[in-house]
Amino acid sequence: MRICFIGDSFVNGTGDDDALGWPGRVVCSARSNGLDVTYYNLGVRRDTSEDIRRRWRTEAERRLPPENRNRLAFSFGANDCASEADGKARLAHAKTIENAELILRSASSMAPTIMLGPAPVLDDGASDARIKRLSCDLQVLGGDLGVPFLEIFGFVSGCAAWRREAARGDGAHPNGEGYAALADYIWNWREFRRWIGADK
Amino acid sequence: MRICFIGDSFVNGTGDDDALGWPGRVVCSARSNGLDVTYYNLGVRRDTSEDIRRRWRTEAERRLPPENRNRLAFSFGANDCASEADGKARLAHAKTIENAELILRSASSMAPTIMLGPAPVLDDGASDARIKRLSCDLQVLGGDLGVPFLEIFGFVSGCAAWRREAARGDGAHPNGEGYAALADYIWNWREFRRWIGADK
Repeated sequence: MRICFIGDSFVNGTGDDDALGWPGRVVCSARSNGLDVTYYNLGVRRDTSEDIRRRWRTEAERRLPPENRNRLAFSFGANDCASEADGKARLAHAKTIENAELILRSASSMAPTIMLGPAPVLDDGASDARIKRLSCDLQVLGGDLGVPFLEIFGFVSGCAAWRREAARGDGAHPNGEGYAALADYIWNWREFRRWIGADK
Repeated sequence: MRICFIGDSFVNGTGDDDALGWPGRVVCSARSNGLDVTYYNLGVRRDTSEDIRRRWRTEAERRLPPENRNRLAFSFGANDCASEADGKARLAHAKTIENAELILRSASSMAPTIMLGPAPVLDDGASDARIKRLSCDLQVLGGDLGVPFLEIFGFVSGCAAWRREAARGDGAHPNGEGYAALADYIWNWREFRRWIGADK
């Protein structure tokens, strides 16, 4: 099976001294469960849903020949909600939802697709208020489109290791312990294990 | 610092239960040496120099905003040398050299660039004879262009862990021990440490 993990710096695993992020860790779990997984980490720092809408399909098609068992996982939205100098978000809420719908509809026609909601940035309350609202609306969208969706905003907000490491780091990105906690949370999501083929 | 590692399945880390490959491992070494590195693994299974020539610049530019300290590392060539049904190589030797020159010239104008030679596939003698010759000629090219080049064909051919894991796996790709040995070999290359900023 070949998987593309597509998104932002939280997908990239920025700040992780173990160089795995959560995608590397869930792939380790999958492989230790006997699943023959190749993965491509396509998380890019500072990417908004607009950047991802423009690039994801070209990048994924180069990596997922149609004769293979392919999977797509998305997570984005935090950068859309970042505060610009004027205090407004980088991208309007409605625009993010529109991009997400375009991405998820197109992705679902290519391979089994899941989405994880955006993570809080912790160091900007205005951004986090927007991210929380966006996460709720993305969850509704996922439901409408039949794309399994995992909200992670609440989990990350309450994760002591994540908060501690982010505070010691750049304010927003955790280190290995935070990413490991999120990877466990994702691995324990039933829809994830079904999608990756660990639960039949 | 932001690094793009661009190449084939040996860059991707295919077969590695630890989900790191050699790029993840050298990044761990860099971070444990206090270097603030973000990395993008742009290794793609089955990619030839032709595939890489077409995609690398677009993918790298999305990930390396010019205001950052950026680095580029390439490794490819094994798939160019793979045997087709008629026994010939997927790509002619001269074409690979031409692609490599185009890639390395363009890359060097964008960010400090290094290249690692192609790894042997071990399970096809005809391919490996071509890869060995290609690696020699790529090394000459690197010298001509002033791009630091590390030959890995000999190291991998003689690496017991790599050979044992490849034989247990798909014949060509090692698992964590083989990738770790290669990562150490790369880390101990003086030009690599200079390029990544570990040696001043």
